[in-house]
Amino acid sequence: MMDFHGTSLIGGAFVPSGAGRVYHAISPVTGESLPGTFVDASSEDIDTAMQAAHQAAGELRRYTGARIGDLLDTIAEELDAHAEALVTRANEESHLGAARLEGELARTTGQLRLLADAARNETERLRRTDHVGGSTLRLLDVPVGPVAVFGSSNFPLAFSVPGGDTASALAAGCPVIVKAHPAHPGTSELAAGAIHRACERLAFPAGTFQMIHGVDHATGAALVRHPHLRAVAFTGSHRGGTALARLANERPHPIPVYAELGAANPVVLLSHALASRSEVMADTLAESLTLGVGQFCTNPGLMLMRQGPHAEAFERALVQRLAAAPEAVMLTEGIRTAYLAGIERLTHTAGVVSCHQADASDTLVGPSLMKIRAADALDEPSVFTEVFGPAGVLVLADDEVELVEVIQSLPGALVGSLFADEADGREAVEVIQALSDRVGRIVVNHVPTGVLVSAAQHHGGPYPATLHDRETSVGTRAITRFLRPLALQDVPEAWFA
Amino acid sequence: MMDFHGTSLIGGAFVPSGAGRVYHAISPVTGESLPGTFVDASSEDIDTAMQAAHQAAGELRRYTGARIGDLLDTIAEELDAHAEALVTRANEESHLGAARLEGELARTTGQLRLLADAARNETERLRRTDHVGGSTLRLLDVPVGPVAVFGSSNFPLAFSVPGGDTASALAAGCPVIVKAHPAHPGTSELAAGAIHRACERLAFPAGTFQMIHGVDHATGAALVRHPHLRAVAFTGSHRGGTALARLANERPHPIPVYAELGAANPVVLLSHALASRSEVMADTLAESLTLGVGQFCTNPGLMLMRQGPHAEAFERALVQRLAAAPEAVMLTEGIRTAYLAGIERLTHTAGVVSCHQADASDTLVGPSLMKIRAADALDEPSVFTEVFGPAGVLVLADDEVELVEVIQSLPGALVGSLFADEADGREAVEVIQALSDRVGRIVVNHVPTGVLVSAAQHHGGPYPATLHDRETSVGTRAITRFLRPLALQDVPEAWFA
Repeated sequence: MMDFHGTSLIGGAFVPSGAGRVYHAISPVTGESLPGTFVDASSEDIDTAMQAAHQAAGELRRYTGARIGDLLDTIAEELDAHAEALVTRANEESHLGAARLEGELARTTGQLRLLADAARNETERLRRTDHVGGSTLRLLDVPVGPVAVFGSSNFPLAFSVPGGDTASALAAGCPVIVKAHPAHPGTSELAAGAIHRACERLAFPAGTFQMIHGVDHATGAALVRHPHLRAVAFTGSHRGGTALARLANERPHPIPVYAELGAANPVVLLSHALASRSEVMADTLAESLTLGVGQFCTNPGLMLMRQGPHAEAFERALVQRLAAAPEAVMLTEGIRTAYLAGIERLTHTAGVVSCHQADASDTLVGPSLMKIRAADALDEPSVFTEVFGPAGVLVLADDEVELVEVIQSLPGALVGSLFADEADGREAVEVIQALSDRVGRIVVNHVPTGVLVSAAQHHGGPYPATLHDRETSVGTRAITRFLRPLALQDVPEAWFA
Repeated sequence: MMDFHGTSLIGGAFVPSGAGRVYHAISPVTGESLPGTFVDASSEDIDTAMQAAHQAAGELRRYTGARIGDLLDTIAEELDAHAEALVTRANEESHLGAARLEGELARTTGQLRLLADAARNETERLRRTDHVGGSTLRLLDVPVGPVAVFGSSNFPLAFSVPGGDTASALAAGCPVIVKAHPAHPGTSELAAGAIHRACERLAFPAGTFQMIHGVDHATGAALVRHPHLRAVAFTGSHRGGTALARLANERPHPIPVYAELGAANPVVLLSHALASRSEVMADTLAESLTLGVGQFCTNPGLMLMRQGPHAEAFERALVQRLAAAPEAVMLTEGIRTAYLAGIERLTHTAGVVSCHQADASDTLVGPSLMKIRAADALDEPSVFTEVFGPAGVLVLADDEVELVEVIQSLPGALVGSLFADEADGREAVEVIQALSDRVGRIVVNHVPTGVLVSAAQHHGGPYPATLHDRETSVGTRAITRFLRPLALQDVPEAWFA
């Protein structure tokens, strides 16, 4: 059994246990406490952490990209060296399964190494020179300063302590203070320990990376309100993200909250594709819908198509697959309750017809499928609102015009998928044009789940999918969120490069 | 005498006069009404305009960069063709002088032509391709949609109707709705007419460019609240910009307000420069401080230096120049009142000593110079707050450490100037490092006024200088504020390019 400090990592050490609120990780399977007693950071802890971060910011600003790259590579190394403990504990806390979590760890370290390269080669940094009006103007960028990271429960590694937000803020040269997610405090401590060791090995300032516990929302709020903080990165619920944004906007000095809030992502199935391969698409979409018990922000929650016999065949095939899917444990009791409430809301929406509902049990949930005619959905746009979990809604349009109208009426989403054959080309062009105004990523003949980590990736999208639709939380461009341009007019390079 | 429609330009025509609040342009010299009766847009007008803009957005999204570039070039052509009328009316409304306004018009058309080139060559647009995980990922960007522009009174052309915000939004392919500044409604109508003729000549949609009148704040508020609006660009006061941002954040679907709010910009004079050329610097800074009656967001409001005989010599030389500066008319009575109140506030601040105050008259103002010891300024940071107009504050530090401490304590500013000789090099490095955290542009041995229009420019800066410190309102990068990235995974180029 592992031993946990249970306290916050501040100024280069796990601090002594204070007087904060105490909490435990809860097993999603048994509902019982897991080993480790965790304690919230006090307001003094947060102030100490922010002073250390502020000081570190002054030092990191002068570091080369190569030095920052080395830190990210070393963090990946430390995570790999403790893979077994990380995966074991993450599985106890999330019940996502060892295979999935091993994959997630590989994604996390791969992301760190990709961002290490980007930092080393300054691929995401501005460098322009112009000679104008008798002056030499150089444009470059500087780190914004300390960044707070709020991770998500559904990716205890890749979108949590060692995830893309932490990696991209560090890659930009910004100190990071993570607020540990209370659904996986043990995994958080283990990952924080790995990052901390990497910082120590390379003699980075003590305030480079810190982590605070805060099961009480007041702790996160105090972090966001601290005058030394310069930006917030958040992955999670609409309610959580917008609450932090409100706090950030109310500061004497407002700061951005880069929040990825998830979405009901549209999947559009065009007629020829439906006619030629409804069984295959039912396989693919059933898998995507139930993957990780549907707990993905890229889950294909809405399936749009023209009604008719092929749509009916697809519906039958999808119901068959979903009925065969095993019931499973969700990440937390809160998520399970919200999922069941979301289904309840949908089933009571005018025009919604249930296609498949799994039996409810005390702890397990199963997939849910409903359908609605496009005309009814346009009258009742609440059916377009995300239900976090393995819930899908089929939206059936009378014709192409109505199909495009539905897409134009959708709330902003992270990703839109289109299943189309060559012969669907003309209609595909119209659908993609409409999707381009409503999503941050368009995928053809793939499911929306599975976000590739790349310099060409954009994991974002119009509100309410995110709060800043021009920013991505995945890929190397995530770094630019934490860099601020600076123009230098006739400043000798010897004085500032 | 010119004839004015006086109404809003909506859907391709100046609408009939409605029931809105009526106003006139006021001559800053005589306080009398100038020709032309202007009337606020009604809420129906605004809705009509936003519907037209929404429709235009759908069309502009499909236009090539070449077509957009042609529009911007044609706008410049139309402005040039009506230069005399524009400059005459702008001078009547602003009293900035014909020479200055001719220069400002040249800046405005030059800016339009630079942005035309950027649109044509897509220099500011994302284009990346990556092959990863068996997929082809293409990253590009799309226009965000309709943009509202609120111009400033101190640049009736370059930061108003035909200014950088309008030009960069159009360059991104976004329809623009300008809220005319009530200090220069006639200039606004003339410029709007020029843009409108360019749109007609090239057969752009009627909703491409529109302008509404709104002397009543409720009109601008209705514009910002309209659900079809996607972004706001604002140049003006802190109070105005933050009020719009509050409205924008309270929308069901929040949108960004790219606001440039001005600042008290620091000028740092290092010791060798002070010793070798205090007279020359006094000339230069007196001119910069009084240019356009100090009504520049880049005005050198704070002058920081180490105290001693050279600082005293500089102070004497500066007072001499300012005492010789003619008194002048400010843009509006509101600005004059605020300027006098700002000086009053400064003179009653603990530790502030007056060096020079011009006599006040009923309509004219003159420059003001005050000084304060750095230690006192650190105790009373309100002296670092901008006074819009020809007011300067000398901040006198005991030593280099205190000088850097003052810089670190400054609120965010648009630009910091450093006057330094070769021999000041070591200290210059420290000062520039400190400035890099507090400003958006650093200038060596130049005044802060005069913002070059370039691909390498950044006219922005940390809060409170702007509300989005990563964005610029001058130069080609201004375009990126109105573009949103979109990732395309295995989307055939024939379906979306």
